[in-house]
Amino acid sequence: MSGSSYTGGTAAVSATDSIRERIAQAVNSVRETTPLAQSFTNFVTINLVANAQLAAGGTAAMSFLPDDIVDTAKIAGSTYINVGTLLPFYKDALADIARKLQYLGKPWVLDPVAAGIGKTRTAILQSFKAAPPTVIRGNASEIIALDAMWELGAPARADAETTRPAGVEAVDEVESSVQAAKRLARYLAQHAPNGKGAVAVSGEADLVTDGETVYRLPGGSAMMTKITGAGCSLGGVTATYLAVAEPLTASLAASLLYNRASEIAERESNGPGSFQVAFLDALWNITADQVAESRILIG
Amino acid sequence: MSGSSYTGGTAAVSATDSIRERIAQAVNSVRETTPLAQSFTNFVTINLVANAQLAAGGTAAMSFLPDDIVDTAKIAGSTYINVGTLLPFYKDALADIARKLQYLGKPWVLDPVAAGIGKTRTAILQSFKAAPPTVIRGNASEIIALDAMWELGAPARADAETTRPAGVEAVDEVESSVQAAKRLARYLAQHAPNGKGAVAVSGEADLVTDGETVYRLPGGSAMMTKITGAGCSLGGVTATYLAVAEPLTASLAASLLYNRASEIAERESNGPGSFQVAFLDALWNITADQVAESRILIG
Amino acid sequence: MSGSSYTGGTAAVSATDSIRERIAQAVNSVRETTPLAQSFTNFVTINLVANAQLAAGGTAAMSFLPDDIVDTAKIAGSTYINVGTLLPFYKDALADIARKLQYLGKPWVLDPVAAGIGKTRTAILQSFKAAPPTVIRGNASEIIALDAMWELGAPARADAETTRPAGVEAVDEVESSVQAAKRLARYLAQHAPNGKGAVAVSGEADLVTDGETVYRLPGGSAMMTKITGAGCSLGGVTATYLAVAEPLTASLAASLLYNRASEIAERESNGPGSFQVAFLDALWNITADQVAESRILIG
Repeated sequence: MSGSSYTGGTAAVSATDSIRERIAQAVNSVRETTPLAQSFTNFVTINLVANAQLAAGGTAAMSFLPDDIVDTAKIAGSTYINVGTLLPFYKDALADIARKLQYLGKPWVLDPVAAGIGKTRTAILQSFKAAPPTVIRGNASEIIALDAMWELGAPARADAETTRPAGVEAVDEVESSVQAAKRLARYLAQHAPNGKGAVAVSGEADLVTDGETVYRLPGGSAMMTKITGAGCSLGGVTATYLAVAEPLTASLAASLLYNRASEIAERESNGPGSFQVAFLDALWNITADQVAESRILIG
Repeated sequence: MSGSSYTGGTAAVSATDSIRERIAQAVNSVRETTPLAQSFTNFVTINLVANAQLAAGGTAAMSFLPDDIVDTAKIAGSTYINVGTLLPFYKDALADIARKLQYLGKPWVLDPVAAGIGKTRTAILQSFKAAPPTVIRGNASEIIALDAMWELGAPARADAETTRPAGVEAVDEVESSVQAAKRLARYLAQHAPNGKGAVAVSGEADLVTDGETVYRLPGGSAMMTKITGAGCSLGGVTATYLAVAEPLTASLAASLLYNRASEIAERESNGPGSFQVAFLDALWNITADQVAESRILIG
Repeated sequence: MSGSSYTGGTAAVSATDSIRERIAQAVNSVRETTPLAQSFTNFVTINLVANAQLAAGGTAAMSFLPDDIVDTAKIAGSTYINVGTLLPFYKDALADIARKLQYLGKPWVLDPVAAGIGKTRTAILQSFKAAPPTVIRGNASEIIALDAMWELGAPARADAETTRPAGVEAVDEVESSVQAAKRLARYLAQHAPNGKGAVAVSGEADLVTDGETVYRLPGGSAMMTKITGAGCSLGGVTATYLAVAEPLTASLAASLLYNRASEIAERESNGPGSFQVAFLDALWNITADQVAESRILIG
C-alpha cells in the first residue's frame, strides 16, 4: 500500500485470469447495489472509514453500542471490527458480538490494530479465536502477533506474552508475515460457513492470501503512511466488497482499488492534506477495469 | 437535500414574503454574533458538525460528559443532541439531560439518527417525549419511527416495536412522512415555553413544518449522500441558527443554506473528497441573500 | 495563532540567537527520526491531531484505554493529554495515568481544554497538580483557570470554584495570562526530572514561556479559529517536538510552525474547507529555516 517496486521471482497473474473478472464484478456490484457494511471502528479514523466506503460506492453505518451492532448486523451485508481505540466495557461486549455474528452466519472483517499492546485488546483478540472473522486485514506486525496469540504456528512461538508489541505502525516486513498470514487464512476458511476466508497484509507490496495461493500487489503510494486511517479505511472498504463477493475477491479488490487510487492521488496532490482529498475523489472516479487490470503476482 | 426537481402542485412563497427577511436575518445574525451552539453528537461526523457550524459563522462546543453538557447548556444559545453513536451509560444520562434542558428553558435540536434500531436508542428516544426538543431534524424513516414511538398518530400505528427500523439511510420518501412531521411539530410547539417548534425532513426535496404550514425546499446535490455527516451537520447548523432565531426560521435557514452550498460545491468539485472541501468553503462564502432568495414551496 | 500585528515595546530575538538553531534542529529531527508521540485526546479533533503530527513528520498513536495509554507511553517519545471530551471513568483513570507517566519519567503535554467547566474535568485537572505535565498549551482563559485551580498565585485568587468558566473559546486576552503562564511554567520546571518546563498560550500573538523568559510570536491566520482543532492539533504537534527537544524549544517550534503554515494556507485557500487542506500541505512542505527565521519578541 505504501509504494514499492516489488520484483520477487514470482509469476504474474495473466490478463485473462478469471480472478480479474471477479474483481471487476465486485467493484461494479458495489456501485450498483450500494450494499450496507457496518463498522465498529476507532475514534481516530472513523470518519475516513465511512467516507471511503461511500466513495467506493457502498453505504456506511457506524455502531458502538452492542445492541446496535447486533441489530445492524442483521440488515447489513457485512461488518467491520477494528480494535484501534477501545473502552473498558468492550472487553466482554466484543467477544459476545463475535459469537452473535457467528450464530447469524454474517461475514465480517477484523482489523487487529495494535495487536500485542494492552491487556484489554489482547483479551478481546484472543476471544475472537472461538468465533473468528471471515477476513483479517492488518500490517505485518499485527498479523504475526495475532497468529502467535491464536497459537496457530509451531508451539515454540506460541506465547503471546513474549510477542513484541506491534504498535500501530508495522515494525515487521510483509515477507516475514507470509506463513502467519497463510495459517490465519486457513483457520478462517476452516471455520467459515462456506469454507472461505482471506488475510490481507498491508505494506510496501500488499499481500493477500486465501491460505493456499499468495497474491502480491505491487504499487501504491508512500503518502498513504502520511495520512491517518489509510489501513483502517482499507479494512472498511474490504467489508464493503465482502458484502457482495467472497473473501479472496473482496480483499484483492479493496487492496487494488487502494493502490491505484493512491497512485492517482499522489500525482494530483501537493502534501497530505490535498492527498486525502484527491484519494477520496479517485476512489469515486476510478473504473472497475483500472482496478482489475492491475499487476498481480503469485507465489 | 440530495438533488431534486420537485414540482408538486404547490404554491411558491413570494419574493417579498416576510419569511425571507427572517431567514436572511438569521444567516447574518449568526455571522455577526458568532453564537455558541453546543453539540452532543456521534463519533463519526462530530468533526464535520463542528466545522460546518464554524463555517456558517457560529461557535462550536462538543460535549459527552453529562455534567459538561448541562454546564455548557447554561452558557450556550442552543444545544444539539444526535443519537447516532451511543454508549451504554447514556441510557439514563440523556433522559436526565433533556429534563435539565427543559427546566433551564433552553432550546435544542434532536437528530433521531437510526430511530428504531437498538433497545438503548429506543429507550432514549422514548424518554424525550416527556421533555421534548424544540426542533427535530431527520430523514423520513426516522421521523415516521419517532412519531410512532411517541404514539402521536392513530392508535393502530402506535406500536414502536413493529416499526421497521430506519437505519441511517432513509428507506421512506419524504412525502410519506408529512403527517408524522406535522404531528411531531405540533407536539413540540405545545410543549415549548414560547409555543413554537419545527420539524425538518431531509430528502430529495427537504420538508420543513411548524405543524401548520408545510414548506418544501427543492434543489441541493445528490453528492450530499456520498459524504458522511451531511444530515448530522445540518442538524448542528440548525442549532446554530436556533441560537438566534425561532424554530421555523432556524430550520428553513439551515436547510436552504445547505441546498445552495451543496449546489455550488457540486459544480466546483470532482468527487466526494473535493466536494466536502468546496461545501465548507461555500457555507462560508455564500451570502444571506443567496440563501433567502431560494425557491420555497408551500402546501 | 490567529493573526495579529503585535508591536509591543519588546525586543526581537536576534537572527543569530541559538534558540533559532535549536528550533530548526527540532523541525528537522522530527522529519528525520519520525518519533512516536501518543495522544489521549478528544473525539472532535482527534483526526486532525493525528494528521497534523504526521504532516509535521512524526508518528501518531491515539489511545483511550488506560492500559493502552501506559503501555504505549513506554515506547513513545512523549504523550499528549487533552481533556476536551471526557467519559465518566476517566475521572480516576487520568489521575492514575499521570502518576504512571511521572513514575516512568516520560514527558507529556497537557491541553486543559475548557478548564473550569464541569466537575469531572475540574477534578481531573486538579489531580494533575501532584503529577504535572512537562508542557501546558491552552488559550488564555484555560491557563488562568488552571493557575487558579492549582493555587499557584496569591491566596486571594486561589478559589477555583469562583473562576469564570473558560469554555472552549478564550474569553481572556493573552496578555492577561502572562503571570499565570509564568507561575505554571516554573511549577512544571520544579517538578520535571530535568528541571525544565514550558507553557504556551495561543491567541492573537502566541506566548511561550519557560517561567523566566516570555517569548511572543506575532503572525498567524485568523482562519485558524474557523476550523475545529487548531489548538488541539498544536498541542499534539508540540508533543511530537517534545519527543526530540526540551520543552521550551518544542513549544516554540510547534507554535512557529503553526503560524507560518497558517499564513501560507490563508493565502492559498478560499474558505475553511480549503484552508484546512492547504494547512496540512503547508505543515508538510514548509522548511525548517522558514520556521526558525520567524520574528520572535522577548519580554
